[in-house]
Amino acid sequence: MTPKEPRVWLERLDSRLAAQLQFLIEADRLKCVLRGCRIADGSRRENSAEHSWHLALFAIVLCEWATDTVDLSRVIQMLVLHDIIEIECGDSPVHDKDLSASKAAREAVAAEKLFRILPADQRVRFHDLWEEFEEAQSPDARFAKALNRLQPVLLNHLVGGGTWLDYDVDEEQERSVTRNIAAGSAALWEAAELVFAEAVQNGWLKPRL
Amino acid sequence: MTPKEPRVWLERLDSRLAAQLQFLIEADRLKCVLRGCRIADGSRRENSAEHSWHLALFAIVLCEWATDTVDLSRVIQMLVLHDIIEIECGDSPVHDKDLSASKAAREAVAAEKLFRILPADQRVRFHDLWEEFEEAQSPDARFAKALNRLQPVLLNHLVGGGTWLDYDVDEEQERSVTRNIAAGSAALWEAAELVFAEAVQNGWLKPRL
Repeated sequence: MTPKEPRVWLERLDSRLAAQLQFLIEADRLKCVLRGCRIADGSRRENSAEHSWHLALFAIVLCEWATDTVDLSRVIQMLVLHDIIEIECGDSPVHDKDLSASKAAREAVAAEKLFRILPADQRVRFHDLWEEFEEAQSPDARFAKALNRLQPVLLNHLVGGGTWLDYDVDEEQERSVTRNIAAGSAALWEAAELVFAEAVQNGWLKPRL
Repeated sequence: MTPKEPRVWLERLDSRLAAQLQFLIEADRLKCVLRGCRIADGSRRENSAEHSWHLALFAIVLCEWATDTVDLSRVIQMLVLHDIIEIECGDSPVHDKDLSASKAAREAVAAEKLFRILPADQRVRFHDLWEEFEEAQSPDARFAKALNRLQPVLLNHLVGGGTWLDYDVDEEQERSVTRNIAAGSAALWEAAELVFAEAVQNGWLKPRL
Protein backbone atom coordinates (compact mmCIF):
# COMPACT_ATOMS: atom_id res chain seq x y z
CA MET A 1 0.00 0.00 0.00
CA THR A 2 2.96 2.33 0.46
CA PRO A 3 5.37 1.61 -2.39
CA LYS A 4 7.45 4.79 -2.13
CA GLU A 5 9.62 3.91 -5.15
CA PRO A 6 9.85 4.40 -8.03
CA ARG A 7 8.61 7.97 -8.25
CA VAL A 8 8.21 8.00 -11.98
CA TRP A 9 6.38 11.34 -11.95
CA LEU A 10 9.50 13.02 -10.52
CA GLU A 11 11.59 11.80 -13.45
CA ARG A 12 9.24 13.45 -15.91
CA LEU A 13 9.69 16.90 -14.30
CA ASP A 14 12.22 19.63 -14.98
CA SER A 15 15.34 18.33 -13.19
CA ARG A 16 15.75 21.41 -11.00
CA LEU A 17 12.18 21.22 -9.72
CA ALA A 18 12.51 17.46 -9.27
CA ALA A 19 15.59 17.93 -7.06
CA GLN A 20 13.78 20.54 -4.98
CA LEU A 21 10.73 18.33 -4.48
CA GLN A 22 12.98 15.40 -3.60
CA PHE A 23 14.59 17.56 -0.89
CA LEU A 24 11.17 18.57 0.47
CA ILE A 25 10.12 14.91 0.58
CA GLU A 26 13.31 13.94 2.46
CA ALA A 27 12.72 16.82 4.84
CA ASP A 28 9.47 15.22 5.98
CA ARG A 29 11.59 12.90 8.15
CA LEU A 30 12.24 15.79 10.56
CA LYS A 31 8.70 15.13 11.87
CA CYS A 32 10.06 11.88 13.33
CA VAL A 33 13.14 13.32 15.07
CA LEU A 34 12.34 13.56 18.78
CA ARG A 35 13.83 16.18 21.08
CA GLY A 36 14.42 15.99 24.82
CA CYS A 37 11.73 18.59 25.56
CA ARG A 38 8.04 17.86 26.03
CA ILE A 39 5.35 19.93 24.35
CA ALA A 40 3.59 22.39 26.68
CA ASP A 41 0.83 20.03 27.87
CA GLY A 42 3.48 17.48 28.91
CA SER A 43 1.79 14.70 26.93
CA ARG A 44 4.75 13.73 24.73
CA ARG A 45 8.18 14.76 23.50
CA GLU A 46 8.42 17.49 20.89
CA ASN A 47 9.65 16.70 17.39
CA SER A 48 12.12 18.92 15.56
CA ALA A 49 9.70 19.91 12.77
CA GLU A 50 7.03 21.33 15.08
CA HIS A 51 9.81 22.89 17.22
CA SER A 52 11.07 24.68 14.09
CA TRP A 53 7.57 25.96 13.33
CA HIS A 54 7.24 27.23 16.89
CA LEU A 55 10.55 29.09 16.57
CA ALA A 56 9.49 30.72 13.29
CA LEU A 57 6.41 31.98 15.13
CA PHE A 58 8.61 33.21 18.00
CA ALA A 59 10.61 35.22 15.45
CA ILE A 60 7.51 36.79 13.89
CA VAL A 61 6.06 37.75 17.27
CA LEU A 62 9.23 38.78 19.12
CA CYS A 63 11.49 40.36 16.48
CA GLU A 64 11.07 43.84 18.01
CA TRP A 65 13.00 42.63 21.08
CA ALA A 66 16.20 41.81 19.19
CA THR A 67 19.13 43.82 20.51
CA ASP A 68 20.44 44.53 17.01
CA THR A 69 18.42 45.35 13.92
CA VAL A 70 17.56 42.03 12.28
CA ASP A 71 16.25 40.94 8.89
CA LEU A 72 13.14 38.98 9.91
CA SER A 73 13.03 37.01 6.66
CA ARG A 74 16.59 35.71 7.17
CA VAL A 75 15.93 34.95 10.85
CA ILE A 76 12.86 32.87 9.96
CA GLN A 77 14.66 31.06 7.14
CA MET A 78 17.49 30.13 9.51
CA LEU A 79 15.02 28.81 12.06
CA VAL A 80 13.07 26.79 9.48
CA LEU A 81 16.35 25.25 8.28
CA HIS A 82 18.38 25.05 11.49
CA ASP A 83 17.44 21.53 12.62
CA ILE A 84 16.98 19.88 9.25
CA ILE A 85 20.37 18.16 9.44
CA GLU A 86 18.96 16.15 12.38
CA ILE A 87 17.29 13.96 9.78
CA GLU A 88 20.72 12.44 9.33
CA CYS A 89 22.17 12.66 12.84
CA GLY A 90 19.33 13.10 15.37
CA ASP A 91 18.87 15.74 18.06
CA SER A 92 21.67 16.49 20.55
CA PRO A 93 20.14 17.79 23.82
CA VAL A 94 22.24 20.65 25.24
CA HIS A 95 22.50 18.93 28.61
CA ASP A 96 23.71 15.63 27.12
CA LYS A 97 27.49 16.05 27.38
CA ASP A 98 28.47 13.11 25.15
CA LEU A 99 26.14 14.04 22.32
CA SER A 100 27.01 17.74 22.62
CA ALA A 101 30.74 17.02 22.38
CA SER A 102 30.40 15.25 19.02
CA LYS A 103 27.57 17.45 17.71
CA ALA A 104 29.52 19.79 15.43
CA ALA A 105 31.37 17.02 13.60
CA ARG A 106 28.28 14.85 13.13
CA GLU A 107 26.19 17.77 11.94
CA ALA A 108 28.79 18.93 9.43
CA VAL A 109 28.69 15.50 7.74
CA ALA A 110 24.89 15.48 7.84
CA ALA A 111 24.65 18.94 6.27
CA GLU A 112 26.97 17.92 3.47
CA LYS A 113 24.84 14.88 2.70
CA LEU A 114 21.43 16.50 2.99
CA PHE A 115 21.98 19.79 1.15
CA ARG A 116 23.60 17.87 -1.73
CA ILE A 117 20.10 16.86 -2.88
CA LEU A 118 19.40 20.50 -3.86
CA PRO A 119 20.44 22.38 -7.02
CA ALA A 120 23.94 23.86 -6.58
CA ASP A 121 22.91 27.48 -5.92
CA GLN A 122 20.43 26.50 -3.19
CA ARG A 123 22.86 23.94 -1.74
CA VAL A 124 25.37 26.73 -1.15
CA ARG A 125 22.81 29.25 0.10
CA PHE A 126 21.16 26.86 2.57
CA HIS A 127 24.48 25.52 3.81
CA ASP A 128 25.70 29.09 4.38
CA LEU A 129 22.51 30.02 6.27
CA TRP A 130 22.81 26.91 8.44
CA GLU A 131 26.47 27.65 9.20
CA GLU A 132 25.71 31.29 9.97
CA PHE A 133 23.11 30.12 12.49
CA GLU A 134 25.50 27.63 14.08
CA GLU A 135 28.26 30.23 14.43
CA ALA A 136 25.85 32.73 16.04
CA GLN A 137 28.02 35.71 15.15
CA SER A 138 25.81 37.86 12.87
CA PRO A 139 22.90 39.86 14.35
CA ASP A 140 20.36 37.64 12.53
CA ALA A 141 21.99 34.42 13.78
CA ARG A 142 22.40 35.77 17.31
CA PHE A 143 18.70 36.53 17.53
CA ALA A 144 17.68 33.22 15.93
CA LYS A 145 19.90 31.39 18.41
CA ALA A 146 18.40 33.34 21.32
CA LEU A 147 14.91 32.13 20.33
CA ASN A 148 16.18 28.57 19.95
CA ARG A 149 17.40 28.71 23.56
CA LEU A 150 14.38 30.54 24.99
CA GLN A 151 11.69 28.18 23.68
CA PRO A 152 12.84 25.07 25.62
CA VAL A 153 13.16 27.19 28.78
CA LEU A 154 9.46 28.04 28.50
CA LEU A 155 8.51 24.42 27.72
CA ASN A 156 10.52 23.02 30.64
CA HIS A 157 8.84 25.49 32.96
CA LEU A 158 5.37 24.71 31.58
CA VAL A 159 5.74 20.97 32.16
CA GLY A 160 7.26 21.38 35.63
CA GLY A 161 10.92 20.61 34.99
CA GLY A 162 11.24 18.58 31.79
CA THR A 163 14.85 18.13 30.71
CA TRP A 164 16.07 20.06 33.80
CA LEU A 165 14.94 17.10 35.91
CA ASP A 166 15.96 14.49 33.29
CA TYR A 167 19.54 15.75 33.34
CA ASP A 168 19.65 16.95 36.99
CA VAL A 169 20.49 20.49 35.89
CA ASP A 170 21.33 23.39 38.24
CA GLU A 171 20.72 27.04 37.48
CA GLU A 172 24.35 27.76 36.68
CA GLN A 173 24.53 24.95 34.12
CA GLU A 174 21.26 26.19 32.63
CA ARG A 175 22.57 29.75 32.43
CA SER A 176 25.72 28.54 30.71
CA VAL A 177 23.78 26.82 27.90
CA THR A 178 21.24 29.64 27.50
CA ARG A 179 23.68 32.56 27.54
CA ASN A 180 22.87 32.99 23.84
CA ILE A 181 19.54 34.49 24.85
CA ALA A 182 21.32 37.46 26.42
CA ALA A 183 23.46 37.90 23.31
CA GLY A 184 20.36 38.21 21.12
CA SER A 185 17.95 40.10 23.36
CA ALA A 186 18.27 41.76 26.76
CA ALA A 187 14.48 41.72 27.27
CA LEU A 188 14.21 38.00 26.55
CA TRP A 189 17.12 37.28 28.88
CA GLU A 190 15.30 39.13 31.62
CA ALA A 191 12.26 36.93 30.97
CA ALA A 192 14.44 33.81 31.11
CA GLU A 193 15.92 34.91 34.43
CA LEU A 194 12.43 35.26 35.91
CA VAL A 195 11.59 31.76 34.68
CA PHE A 196 14.79 30.34 36.18
CA ALA A 197 14.08 31.97 39.56
CA GLU A 198 10.55 30.54 39.66
CA ALA A 199 11.80 27.12 38.50
CA VAL A 200 14.37 27.03 41.33
CA GLN A 201 11.71 28.03 43.81
CA ASN A 202 9.44 25.22 42.54
CA GLY A 203 12.22 22.61 42.70
CA TRP A 204 12.32 22.13 38.92
CA LEU A 205 15.85 23.47 38.54
CA LYS A 206 18.50 22.89 41.21
CA PRO A 207 19.82 25.99 42.98
CA ARG A 208 23.40 27.10 42.40
CA LEU A 209 25.75 25.07 44.64
CA MET B 1 4.25 18.00 38.60
CA THR B 2 2.75 20.15 35.86
CA PRO B 3 1.01 23.08 37.59
CA LYS B 4 0.67 25.36 34.56
CA GLU B 5 -0.90 28.18 36.58
CA PRO B 6 -0.20 30.64 38.01
CA ARG B 7 2.63 31.93 35.85
CA VAL B 8 3.84 34.53 38.29
CA TRP B 9 6.94 35.23 36.24
CA LEU B 10 4.78 36.48 33.35
CA GLU B 11 3.11 39.05 35.60
CA ARG B 12 6.48 40.55 36.47
CA LEU B 13 7.32 41.23 32.82
CA ASP B 14 6.61 44.21 30.61
CA SER B 15 2.92 43.74 29.71
CA ARG B 16 3.50 43.79 25.96
CA LEU B 17 6.16 41.08 26.13
CA ALA B 18 4.00 39.09 28.56
CA ALA B 19 1.08 39.13 26.09
CA GLN B 20 3.35 38.00 23.27
CA LEU B 21 4.80 35.12 25.32
CA GLN B 22 1.29 34.12 26.41
CA PHE B 23 0.30 33.91 22.72
CA LEU B 24 3.37 31.79 21.92
CA ILE B 25 2.52 29.45 24.81
CA GLU B 26 -1.09 29.09 23.60
CA ALA B 27 0.19 28.44 20.09
CA ASP B 28 1.94 25.30 21.34
CA ARG B 29 -1.45 23.55 21.19
CA LEU B 30 -1.22 23.48 17.38
CA LYS B 31 1.17 20.54 17.87
CA CYS B 32 -1.85 18.52 19.05
CA VAL B 33 -4.20 19.37 16.15
CA LEU B 34 -4.27 16.36 13.83
CA ARG B 35 -4.85 16.63 10.09
CA GLY B 36 -6.33 14.04 7.75
CA CYS B 37 -3.00 13.48 5.98
CA ARG B 38 -0.31 11.06 7.09
CA ILE B 39 3.35 12.02 7.26
CA ALA B 40 5.45 10.65 4.37
CA ASP B 41 6.42 7.35 6.03
CA GLY B 42 2.73 6.60 6.64
CA SER B 43 3.31 5.91 10.35
CA ARG B 44 0.85 8.47 11.75
CA ARG B 45 -1.29 11.50 10.95
CA GLU B 46 0.40 14.85 10.52
CA ASN B 47 -0.19 17.65 13.02
CA SER B 48 -0.82 21.23 11.95
CA ALA B 49 2.35 22.63 13.54
CA GLU B 50 4.74 20.35 11.65
CA HIS B 51 2.62 20.83 8.51
CA SER B 52 3.12 24.59 8.85
CA TRP B 53 6.88 24.11 9.21
CA HIS B 54 6.92 21.94 6.09
CA LEU B 55 5.06 24.63 4.14
CA ALA B 56 7.50 27.34 5.26
CA LEU B 57 10.28 25.13 3.89
CA PHE B 58 8.31 24.63 0.65
CA ALA B 59 8.15 28.42 0.30
CA ILE B 60 11.89 28.87 0.84
CA VAL B 61 12.78 26.13 -1.66
CA LEU B 62 10.13 26.75 -4.32
CA CYS B 63 9.57 30.52 -4.37
CA GLU B 64 11.22 30.87 -7.79
CA TRP B 65 8.27 28.92 -9.30
CA ALA B 66 5.60 31.42 -8.25
CA THR B 67 3.74 32.80 -11.26
CA ASP B 68 3.79 36.35 -9.88
CA THR B 69 6.63 38.08 -8.08
CA VAL B 70 6.19 37.30 -4.39
CA ASP B 71 7.59 38.66 -1.13
CA LEU B 72 9.07 35.51 0.41
CA SER B 73 9.01 36.92 3.93
CA ARG B 74 5.25 37.60 3.74
CA VAL B 75 4.58 34.20 2.14
CA ILE B 76 6.42 32.42 4.96
CA GLN B 77 4.71 34.50 7.65
CA MET B 78 1.31 33.62 6.17
CA LEU B 79 2.20 29.93 6.14
CA VAL B 80 3.50 29.96 9.71
CA LEU B 81 0.27 31.65 10.85
CA HIS B 82 -2.30 30.12 8.50
CA ASP B 83 -3.43 27.17 10.61
CA ILE B 84 -3.03 28.65 14.06
CA ILE B 85 -6.76 29.28 14.43
CA GLU B 86 -7.19 25.47 14.38
CA ILE B 87 -6.18 25.56 18.05
CA GLU B 88 -9.71 26.77 18.65
CA CYS B 89 -11.66 24.95 15.93
CA GLY B 90 -9.64 21.95 14.67
CA ASP B 91 -8.63 21.01 11.15
CA SER B 92 -11.23 20.83 8.35
CA PRO B 93 -10.08 18.32 5.70
CA VAL B 94 -10.88 19.62 2.19
CA HIS B 95 -12.70 16.42 1.27
CA ASP B 96 -14.92 16.50 4.37
CA LYS B 97 -17.99 18.30 3.01
CA ASP B 98 -19.70 18.99 6.34
CA LEU B 99 -16.60 20.44 8.00
CA SER B 100 -15.68 22.41 4.87
CA ALA B 101 -19.13 24.00 4.67
CA SER B 102 -18.88 25.47 8.18
CA LYS B 103 -15.14 26.17 8.04
CA ALA B 104 -15.16 29.90 7.28
CA ALA B 105 -17.62 30.79 10.05
CA ARG B 106 -15.90 28.64 12.68
CA GLU B 107 -12.47 29.95 11.77
CA ALA B 108 -13.54 33.60 11.89
CA VAL B 109 -14.68 33.15 15.50
CA ALA B 110 -11.48 31.29 16.35
CA ALA B 111 -9.28 34.01 14.83
CA GLU B 112 -11.06 36.69 16.82
CA LYS B 113 -10.50 34.80 20.05
CA LEU B 114 -6.91 33.76 19.45
CA PHE B 115 -5.42 36.96 18.05
CA ARG B 116 -7.01 38.93 20.90
CA ILE B 117 -4.25 37.64 23.18
CA LEU B 118 -1.71 39.78 21.28
CA PRO B 119 -0.96 43.51 21.64
CA ALA B 120 -3.35 45.56 19.44
CA ASP B 121 -0.94 46.31 16.59
CA GLN B 122 0.06 42.67 16.18
CA ARG B 123 -3.53 41.50 16.58
CA VAL B 124 -4.49 43.58 13.54
CA ARG B 125 -1.43 42.66 11.50
CA PHE B 126 -1.72 38.91 12.11
CA HIS B 127 -5.46 38.92 11.54
CA ASP B 128 -4.96 40.76 8.26
CA LEU B 129 -2.26 38.32 7.13
CA TRP B 130 -4.48 35.36 8.00
CA GLU B 131 -7.42 36.88 6.10
CA GLU B 132 -5.25 37.70 3.11
CA PHE B 133 -4.19 34.05 3.01
CA GLU B 134 -7.76 32.80 3.28
CA GLU B 135 -8.96 35.08 0.48
CA ALA B 136 -6.11 33.95 -1.80
CA GLN B 137 -6.35 37.06 -3.97
CA SER B 138 -2.94 38.74 -3.59
CA PRO B 139 0.12 37.24 -5.32
CA ASP B 140 1.68 36.32 -1.95
CA ALA B 141 -1.50 34.63 -0.74
CA ARG B 142 -2.07 32.83 -4.04
CA PHE B 143 1.40 31.30 -3.88
CA ALA B 144 1.09 30.42 -0.18
CA LYS B 145 -2.26 28.75 -0.91
CA ALA B 146 -0.74 26.84 -3.83
CA LEU B 147 1.89 25.35 -1.50
CA ASN B 148 -0.76 24.52 1.08
CA ARG B 149 -2.58 22.48 -1.57
CA LEU B 150 0.51 20.88 -3.12
CA GLN B 151 1.99 19.45 0.09
CA PRO B 152 -0.92 17.07 0.89
CA VAL B 153 -0.93 15.90 -2.75
CA LEU B 154 2.68 14.77 -2.31
CA LEU B 155 1.97 13.16 1.07
CA ASN B 156 -1.08 11.27 -0.22
CA HIS B 157 0.96 9.97 -3.10
CA LEU B 158 3.88 8.97 -0.83
CA VAL B 159 1.65 6.92 1.47
CA GLY B 160 -0.24 5.26 -1.36
CA GLY B 161 -3.58 7.08 -1.26
CA GLY B 162 -4.04 8.61 2.19
CA THR B 163 -7.07 10.91 2.35
CA TRP B 164 -7.92 10.12 -1.30
CA LEU B 165 -8.86 6.60 -0.18
CA ASP B 166 -10.35 7.77 3.15
CA TYR B 167 -12.80 10.04 1.35
CA ASP B 168 -13.20 7.94 -1.84
CA VAL B 169 -11.98 10.85 -3.98
CA ASP B 170 -11.90 10.90 -7.79
CA GLU B 171 -9.48 12.92 -9.88
CA GLU B 172 -12.02 15.58 -10.77
CA GLN B 173 -12.90 16.21 -7.12
CA GLU B 174 -9.19 16.37 -6.34
CA ARG B 175 -8.57 18.85 -9.15
CA SER B 176 -11.42 21.02 -7.91
CA VAL B 177 -9.92 21.37 -4.42
CA THR B 178 -6.35 21.82 -5.65
CA ARG B 179 -7.05 24.31 -8.42
CA ASN B 180 -5.30 26.88 -6.20
CA ILE B 181 -2.01 25.30 -7.17
CA ALA B 182 -2.49 26.40 -10.78
CA ALA B 183 -3.36 29.93 -9.65
CA GLY B 184 -0.06 30.23 -7.77
CA SER B 185 2.35 28.35 -10.01
CA ALA B 186 2.05 26.77 -13.46
CA ALA B 187 5.12 24.60 -12.86
CA LEU B 188 3.78 23.22 -9.59
CA TRP B 189 0.42 22.51 -11.19
CA GLU B 190 2.20 20.53 -13.87
CA ALA B 191 3.90 18.51 -11.12
CA ALA B 192 0.55 17.94 -9.40
CA GLU B 193 -0.98 16.71 -12.68
CA LEU B 194 1.81 14.15 -13.03
CA VAL B 195 1.16 12.97 -9.46
CA PHE B 196 -2.58 12.68 -10.12
CA ALA B 197 -2.00 10.64 -13.29
CA GLU B 198 0.30 8.22 -11.45
CA ALA B 199 -2.11 8.02 -8.50
CA VAL B 200 -5.00 7.09 -10.81
CA GLN B 201 -2.83 4.48 -12.49
CA ASN B 202 -1.95 3.00 -9.08
CA GLY B 203 -5.57 2.95 -7.90
CA TRP B 204 -5.00 5.56 -5.17
CA LEU B 205 -7.28 8.15 -6.78
CA LYS B 206 -10.44 7.13 -8.63
CA PRO B 207 -10.50 7.91 -12.38
CA ARG B 208 -12.88 10.56 -13.69
CA LEU B 209 -16.34 9.02 -14.15
